[in-house]
Amino acid sequence: MSNVKEFTDRLSKLDFKKMYEDNFFLTWEKTDDEIAAVFTVADALRHLRENNISTKIFDSGLGISLFRDNSTRTRFSFASACNLLGLEVQDLDEGKSQIAHGETVRETANMISFMADVIGIRDDMYIGKGNKYMHDVVDAVTEGYKDGVLEQKPTLVNLQCDIDHPTQCMADMLHIIHEFGGVENLKGKKVAMSWAYSPSYGKPLSVPQGVIGLMTRFGMNVTLAHPEGYDVMKDVEDVARKNAASTGGSFTKTSSMAEAFKDADIVYPKSWAPFAAMEKRTDLYAKGDQDGINALEKELLKQNAEHKDWCCTEDLMKTTKNGKALYLHCLPADINDVSCKDGEVQASVFDRYRTPLYKEASFKPYIIAAMIFLAKVKDPVATLKALEDRKTLRHFQ
Amino acid sequence: MSNVKEFTDRLSKLDFKKMYEDNFFLTWEKTDDEIAAVFTVADALRHLRENNISTKIFDSGLGISLFRDNSTRTRFSFASACNLLGLEVQDLDEGKSQIAHGETVRETANMISFMADVIGIRDDMYIGKGNKYMHDVVDAVTEGYKDGVLEQKPTLVNLQCDIDHPTQCMADMLHIIHEFGGVENLKGKKVAMSWAYSPSYGKPLSVPQGVIGLMTRFGMNVTLAHPEGYDVMKDVEDVARKNAASTGGSFTKTSSMAEAFKDADIVYPKSWAPFAAMEKRTDLYAKGDQDGINALEKELLKQNAEHKDWCCTEDLMKTTKNGKALYLHCLPADINDVSCKDGEVQASVFDRYRTPLYKEASFKPYIIAAMIFLAKVKDPVATLKALEDRKTLRHFQ
Amino acid sequence: MSNVKEFTDRLSKLDFKKMYEDNFFLTWEKTDDEIAAVFTVADALRHLRENNISTKIFDSGLGISLFRDNSTRTRFSFASACNLLGLEVQDLDEGKSQIAHGETVRETANMISFMADVIGIRDDMYIGKGNKYMHDVVDAVTEGYKDGVLEQKPTLVNLQCDIDHPTQCMADMLHIIHEFGGVENLKGKKVAMSWAYSPSYGKPLSVPQGVIGLMTRFGMNVTLAHPEGYDVMKDVEDVARKNAASTGGSFTKTSSMAEAFKDADIVYPKSWAPFAAMEKRTDLYAKGDQDGINALEKELLKQNAEHKDWCCTEDLMKTTKNGKALYLHCLPADINDVSCKDGEVQASVFDRYRTPLYKEASFKPYIIAAMIFLAKVKDPVATLKALEDRKTLRHFQ
Repeated sequence: MSNVKEFTDRLSKLDFKKMYEDNFFLTWEKTDDEIAAVFTVADALRHLRENNISTKIFDSGLGISLFRDNSTRTRFSFASACNLLGLEVQDLDEGKSQIAHGETVRETANMISFMADVIGIRDDMYIGKGNKYMHDVVDAVTEGYKDGVLEQKPTLVNLQCDIDHPTQCMADMLHIIHEFGGVENLKGKKVAMSWAYSPSYGKPLSVPQGVIGLMTRFGMNVTLAHPEGYDVMKDVEDVARKNAASTGGSFTKTSSMAEAFKDADIVYPKSWAPFAAMEKRTDLYAKGDQDGINALEKELLKQNAEHKDWCCTEDLMKTTKNGKALYLHCLPADINDVSCKDGEVQASVFDRYRTPLYKEASFKPYIIAAMIFLAKVKDPVATLKALEDRKTLRHFQ
Repeated sequence: MSNVKEFTDRLSKLDFKKMYEDNFFLTWEKTDDEIAAVFTVADALRHLRENNISTKIFDSGLGISLFRDNSTRTRFSFASACNLLGLEVQDLDEGKSQIAHGETVRETANMISFMADVIGIRDDMYIGKGNKYMHDVVDAVTEGYKDGVLEQKPTLVNLQCDIDHPTQCMADMLHIIHEFGGVENLKGKKVAMSWAYSPSYGKPLSVPQGVIGLMTRFGMNVTLAHPEGYDVMKDVEDVARKNAASTGGSFTKTSSMAEAFKDADIVYPKSWAPFAAMEKRTDLYAKGDQDGINALEKELLKQNAEHKDWCCTEDLMKTTKNGKALYLHCLPADINDVSCKDGEVQASVFDRYRTPLYKEASFKPYIIAAMIFLAKVKDPVATLKALEDRKTLRHFQ
Repeated sequence: MSNVKEFTDRLSKLDFKKMYEDNFFLTWEKTDDEIAAVFTVADALRHLRENNISTKIFDSGLGISLFRDNSTRTRFSFASACNLLGLEVQDLDEGKSQIAHGETVRETANMISFMADVIGIRDDMYIGKGNKYMHDVVDAVTEGYKDGVLEQKPTLVNLQCDIDHPTQCMADMLHIIHEFGGVENLKGKKVAMSWAYSPSYGKPLSVPQGVIGLMTRFGMNVTLAHPEGYDVMKDVEDVARKNAASTGGSFTKTSSMAEAFKDADIVYPKSWAPFAAMEKRTDLYAKGDQDGINALEKELLKQNAEHKDWCCTEDLMKTTKNGKALYLHCLPADINDVSCKDGEVQASVFDRYRTPLYKEASFKPYIIAAMIFLAKVKDPVATLKALEDRKTLRHFQ
C-alpha cells in the first residue's frame, strides 16, 4: 500500500519554489534544498510506481530529445521519465547544417516547442559549446513564451554537457544515499574520483566534474586523482573547493590512485580526456583541421598508454575502507579482458559490484522525472498527494 | 474558464458533412464551408488546450507519418497534432526500393494501417508524383476498409505534395485571419506572393501554388510575382483565377517584385524552382541520368543568380500599405548575411517580424489536428462540447 | 454491443497459468492449451477493439523493439500491439559494436528495461544466433528482476529468430482457423508448405520451420516440399513429426511441388535459403571472410536459378482441393512480372487472394498483443471482463 506522506513531509520542509518554470543546467546552480527536493521527488515517484499508482501528470504533450552524441542509457532514461509523466518522446534528429548558426537555434527551438513540456539535450563533445547551446535554446523558448508564441514554456533538462552531467551524478548520489541509509550518514565519508585507463580516448569530462561538483556538498571528503596532464576544468575544481568548505567536508587532489583509494568509502574510477587536449580538439574542429585532429588523437592515445597501471584492481580495492568501498561507474565500463585487454577495472571487481551498479543506473529515469516534475508542477506536495488519491493504476489487471 | 460555445456556434452554421471519413489533399477540392470548418475547429482545439482541457479523442491508435523529404517543422507539427488527439506517431522509414511499384504501395498502405487512424505524407520532390502517390495510398486503404481488411479507414493528411501544401497555407491563412481580426476584414486586401532569390535551388512550388490557390478565396487581390521562367503550374493559376472571380477578388501576375509589393497588405517573398525545370528534373531522375541532373542544377543555379535583386528589402517594405505589410514565410527563410550572403529577405525586416512569423507557424499543429478531427469525428459540434464537459485536464497539477 | 463472454468462457477451460511472467520463444515450447489461449485472447482483444472498447492495461510503460533485420509489417504490428495495450514503443537502434560481447548484452538488457514491460526482438540472419541472443536477453532481465534492479520483468516476444517466426505463423494459423470456421474443422486438411523460386536468395528459414512446427499440431496433414538441398533444420522436422504423431495428423516430405499441391486445402509457397548454406554463411560472417560470402552468394543464386519452375501457377492451383486451396504468404511475395520476372507466384493467383492475404496479416498485431497480455496479466479472464465493464472508449466521439 502506498503512503506518499513520508516524502511529502520531507518536501514540505524544503524551499524549492524557484525550480517551478525553471531549468536544470548544473547541480551547483541549485541550492541544497533544491537538490534535496529532486532526490525526494525521485524517491516519491518511484514509490508510487512500485505501488502501481500512475504518476502521469500530462494527458498529452511532447518530451523532445536531442542527442548530439551516442546514447543508450540516457536515451532510455529520458524516454522512461517522459512516459512516466505522460509525455510522448519526439526525437530531434538534426540535419547536417540545419542548426549551424545562432539564427536557427532560436527558430528551431520555437518550431519544435509548440506542444513541448520538456526538452532534453546531450551536447558534450566540445568544450565551451554544449552548455552554451542549452542556454541558447532556453533563451529562445523563454522569449517565445513571453511573446505569446508558445502556450507553455518547456523546461530544459541537461542530459550531459561539456561541464556537468547532472542526471548521471544525481543518480549516482541518490544510489549512495540509499546504500548508506540516508544523507545523514555521509559526513566524513571518503570519495575517490579517480582517472582510470581506457584504450579509447576523448571521453567527456562532465562525469568527473559533475561528481566533484556534487559530492562535495554532503560533508564528504572528496579526492580527485589523475595522472599529470589530465586536469579537469579549473572552474569546477573551485566549485568543489567552495562546496567542501561550506559543508565541513574537503576536496583534495592527488596524482596517485593508491592514495585516493586508501580508506575510501566510495570509489569512482573512470577514464576521461585531459581538459587542455579537449580545448585543443574543439579549436581544431572549429577550424576543420583534420590532420591536426588525427595528430592530436595519436598523441593522446600515446599519453594514455603510459598510464595503464591506473586500473581498479582487486589489490587496490583491498586498500579501501574494510576492503569494501562502494564501487561506482556511469557505465559502460572498460573491463579488463572483457571489453578490452587493459581497462578501467578488473573483471572480478566489476562482477562483484554488478548488481549495485545496475541499481545505480536505475535511479536516472526517476532523477530526470523529478527534474521535470519540479519544473512543471506548481505545488509538488499537493500534486503528489493528489496522484496517490487519484489511484489510477499504472498496470490495470 | 473555457467556453467552447463560440466555436460550436460558428461550426453549426457550416456544412462540412462530407469531410467525415474523407481526406485532405488540396484546399481547392474543399468548399468554403469546409475550409471555414477547419479554421474553426483549429481555433476550438487551441482554445481547449489553452484552458488546460484535454482534447484526446483517441485512447489508442497510431498516426503514421511518411516523409519523403526533410522536415522539422511539419514533422513536429504532425507529431503534436496526433499527440493532442491521442494518437501515437509511428514513422514509416522506407527502405530503398520497398515502395517501388504500384503493387507494393497498395500492400504497404494496408500493412501499416491495421490500427492507424491517420496517415500524413510529405512527397513534394517530383512533379506529377507526390499527389498521385497520396491518392494511391488512399485508394489502397479505402479498398482495404471496404474489403474488411481494416477495422477503420485512416484519413490522409497531405503534408506537402508537388501541387499544394495545405497545412502550411492554411496555417498562414489562419494567421492572417487572426492578425486582421477576422475573415470579414479581408475583402480588398492585397497579397503579394513573390518569388525571392535564394542561393539554393529546387525548392518546391507547392507553397506559392498553395498560397494562390487558397488566398484568392477570401475576396483579396492576390498578385503572383516572379522573374520570367519561374512559372508555377498552369492548372493552379486557373484555380486562382476562378477563385478570385467567384469571391470578388482578383488574381494578377507580374514580373516585377516592386509592382507586387506596392500597397500590399500582406507579402510572402519566397524562393521556388521553375515548374518547367522541375518537370525536366523529374524526367531525368526517372531515367537515372545523373549527368543530366548535374547539368540542370548548374544551369538553374546560374539562372537563379541573375535575380539576386529579388529580395525583400527595407526599401521594398516601405512601399507596402503604410510601410507595414504583414510579412509571411513558411520558414526557414534565407536571410541576408545570416544564413547566406544574399537571400530572400534583409535581416532587419526578418527580425522585425520574427514573433508574428513564429505565431504563423504555431497554427500548423492545430490545422493538422482539425483536419484529422473533421475526418474522424461524426458530429464535431457534439464532440467539442463533450470534451469541454469531460473536463479531463491536459496538465494535472 | 460487446460481449466478451464468448471468449472468456473458452479461456476458462484452458490451462495457461505458466504463461504469466513467461516469454514467447518458440511455439513448440508451448502446450496446446497455451497456443489456444493466445488465439482466444487475440480474438477477444480484436472483439473489444471492434466494439470501440479500450484494451489499455498499461497507463504508462515502454515496449522496446530491436530489429536486427529490416521490417515494415512486423515493426508496425509490434507498435500497434504495444499501443493497443498502452505501452509506448521505444526502438533500440544498436550502435555498431555496442552489443558485441556477452558482457554488454547483459548490461544493455537491464539498462533499457527499467520501465519496460515488453521487449520484442527480430534476429533472424544467422543460424544458431538469434534465438540464443533472445535467451541471453531474457536471462539478463530475469536476473535483474530477481536482484531488485528491475521493478518489473519485461516479457520477451520473439519477432523472428533463426528457428521460428511465432507471431507470423500464429497469425497465419488464426487466419486458417477463421477461414475454416474453427479449429475443429481442421482435422485431415492437407497443408502444402512449399519452397518457391525467388530471384533473391538467403531468405530466413524461420517461416517454413515455424509453419511445420505449428500446423502439425491440429491433426492436419502437412507436406514440406522443396528441391534437393533446400532442407530446413532437422530438429524442427523432428518437432513436426512428433506433433503429427500425437495429434493424428501427418508430416511428410517431398521434392515435388506438384505432389505437395495435389488436393491441398492450404498452400504456402515461399522461398527460403538452404539450411546448410545458411550455416556456412554464418561461419563466413563470423570469420569476416567477404570473398567467401561473395562466392557463396554466387553459388546460391546459381543453384536457385535451376528451380524457376517452382512457382505457384494457376495450373498448380487447379490441382488443389476443388481448385480452391487457401493461398498463404507472409508477404511481401515475389510476384511474376510484378515485383520480378520470375517469382514465387503468378500475378493472377496473387490477385485473387489479395484480400484474404491482407486479412491473414491483420491478425499479427493481435497475436503479439495476446502474447504480451498473457505474460503480463495474472488473471486474463477477469481482466478481459474488467475491460469490458470499464467501458473506456477507444475512439471518443
